[in-house]
Amino acid sequence: MPAFVPPQRLLLGPGPSNVAPRVLQALAQPSIGHLDPQFVAMMDETKTLLRRAFLTDNALTVPVSAPGSAGMETCFVNLIEPGDTVIVCQNGVFGGRMKENVLRVGATPVMVQDDFGKPVDLDKAQAALKANPGAKALAFVHAETSTGARSDAQALCALAHEYGALSIVDAVTSLAGIELRVDAWGCDAIYSGSQKCLSAPAGLSPISFGERAVAALKARKSPVQSWFLDLSLVMAYWQGEGARAYHHTAPINMLFALHEALTAVHEEGLENAWARHQTNHQRLRDGLQEMGLDLLVAEAARLPQLNAVRIPDGVEDLPVRKRLLDEFNIEIGAGLGALAGKIWRIGLMGTNSRPEAVDAVLAALKTALGR
Amino acid sequence: MPAFVPPQRLLLGPGPSNVAPRVLQALAQPSIGHLDPQFVAMMDETKTLLRRAFLTDNALTVPVSAPGSAGMETCFVNLIEPGDTVIVCQNGVFGGRMKENVLRVGATPVMVQDDFGKPVDLDKAQAALKANPGAKALAFVHAETSTGARSDAQALCALAHEYGALSIVDAVTSLAGIELRVDAWGCDAIYSGSQKCLSAPAGLSPISFGERAVAALKARKSPVQSWFLDLSLVMAYWQGEGARAYHHTAPINMLFALHEALTAVHEEGLENAWARHQTNHQRLRDGLQEMGLDLLVAEAARLPQLNAVRIPDGVEDLPVRKRLLDEFNIEIGAGLGALAGKIWRIGLMGTNSRPEAVDAVLAALKTALGR
Repeated sequence: MPAFVPPQRLLLGPGPSNVAPRVLQALAQPSIGHLDPQFVAMMDETKTLLRRAFLTDNALTVPVSAPGSAGMETCFVNLIEPGDTVIVCQNGVFGGRMKENVLRVGATPVMVQDDFGKPVDLDKAQAALKANPGAKALAFVHAETSTGARSDAQALCALAHEYGALSIVDAVTSLAGIELRVDAWGCDAIYSGSQKCLSAPAGLSPISFGERAVAALKARKSPVQSWFLDLSLVMAYWQGEGARAYHHTAPINMLFALHEALTAVHEEGLENAWARHQTNHQRLRDGLQEMGLDLLVAEAARLPQLNAVRIPDGVEDLPVRKRLLDEFNIEIGAGLGALAGKIWRIGLMGTNSRPEAVDAVLAALKTALGR
Repeated sequence: MPAFVPPQRLLLGPGPSNVAPRVLQALAQPSIGHLDPQFVAMMDETKTLLRRAFLTDNALTVPVSAPGSAGMETCFVNLIEPGDTVIVCQNGVFGGRMKENVLRVGATPVMVQDDFGKPVDLDKAQAALKANPGAKALAFVHAETSTGARSDAQALCALAHEYGALSIVDAVTSLAGIELRVDAWGCDAIYSGSQKCLSAPAGLSPISFGERAVAALKARKSPVQSWFLDLSLVMAYWQGEGARAYHHTAPINMLFALHEALTAVHEEGLENAWARHQTNHQRLRDGLQEMGLDLLVAEAARLPQLNAVRIPDGVEDLPVRKRLLDEFNIEIGAGLGALAGKIWRIGLMGTNSRPEAVDAVLAALKTALGR
């Protein structure tokens, strides 16, 4: 079987985004042991860098050794116990996945439904909290990757606390792309992914748990149902003084890459990165408007890093995406769920949020649509 | 924060082993989308290569997007249901982890205990199966990474079937290092790791499920408790005809690397790889004997890829390992659990099973021990 040589794509879908060359270089360094003192020192630096990216002092801030979906599951299996009630806000595909997670822990999800493309309605969330006293958590998606809508994470966390519930925040697409302040906003448990605005390779899920979440962990009545994702075990490896207790073999090279990607974010500065995402989003929006293409999400809730573009009447979804991929080596995303065939998703994430990328996808779309 | 530049280590512990340069190169190729047709074609090739490495025709043969511990959990959460009884053979640390997995599924483990360093006793396993009619599975570790003992996987699978139980096989350290024949031996569910004898980076867990295991999956009465590891969902991504259903974002670059590592195994030939591991083990054994060092495991059950060396009386564990690491850049492993401080574990896995590596660790040990 011949070696696999991937084509050189510009990845402007909902993620993965392209990985910066310096990060690919870090990824390909020779492996060392997961208990090597030098590796342990690098783990400590990675935790520090992750805390800066999340804007938190949370001690429990680590990358889970698996993709964002496992980060989501880490939050639910560690915090939620059988019999708990969880308010789950759904305004896209990923809220539905949260519901699945709640069910599989043996807890009861109470759904707060909003249309795909709208942010979570604060009044509805409040009504659900009011109607379900004692709910263990309020879970929501900060940046809905399936629709491009931003919800008000700060207000939702405040609501959760007002009713004595923990906030569980999906920040897979938001981390390092838009404003996100874990400590200032009171996000109790939050998870993200490596392959979106961090521009690291796909496969890791940074998480952070605050004091209230850690207290909930410690107060559990039942063991965590997952051995692999049990944070009490994971932390013996990531947090011990000096020698670390072996839990599982860390994904060494992936962590080399994450360390380098986080260093790049830190060098640019978080607020500069947020501003850059906004600037390039505006360039895309202007270009789309010139072509007569509309965005799905109202301006106030639009994510700069994930742009849901309405497919014009009479235009078929797949042939356009296929032409972009085959002819221009540009990947854009399809709609998911109810939005399949109705939108394209153009991601401008991490290193891909730059003017050349915007211009490239606009030019390709212009050709493909004959506009 | 400066870039992290790892030291160049010779990794002769229990894993990770060094990753071949060609595999590191594959790892660092630019990412493409996880739904890109070219990526999907590479996934198909990877499944074919994995089947060859496992010597199976099982359709359900894929890498789980997380380390070997998650591969173990995948087998237990998919096959075992609350109330089931599972016979778990423990002759090292990893049998204990299997027990933990059984408990967390809400099932009952029946333990078959053997001393650390001994293979699983077939008579005891049979007695346990006899005493627990209707047991759902017999679970055991083919190559105990914590002790260096090989158990008779073929005989244990046959026993399981004789009593109507599924066989669940830990092949984390055995795959591509010693004889392992999934179809011929009737391994119903098996998992491995990328970072041992495959010499791919740490972070993936190849698994394979046979017909009987798939039938058990289909006959489940309760949903799989993990969303991330639910094989009915995972397979919609790995198996669909043409377009694949999105489940989670695959670890793209890690899969580039696994594809290349499996290609290397295929080029060498499985039986040649097994023979090479045996030859280099003998070279190590001879050198150790010359120094007056003994192996823990009796010859008949010795793993060639994981050598448990008794620490001589009067020699302290840590200073020797530290000197090997600091002075010679060679990592060897400590003992785990009951064997901590009593053995060193010298791994000769994958690309590290070669004469130069054997000679290097022997020379370093000679110096460190003053022999």
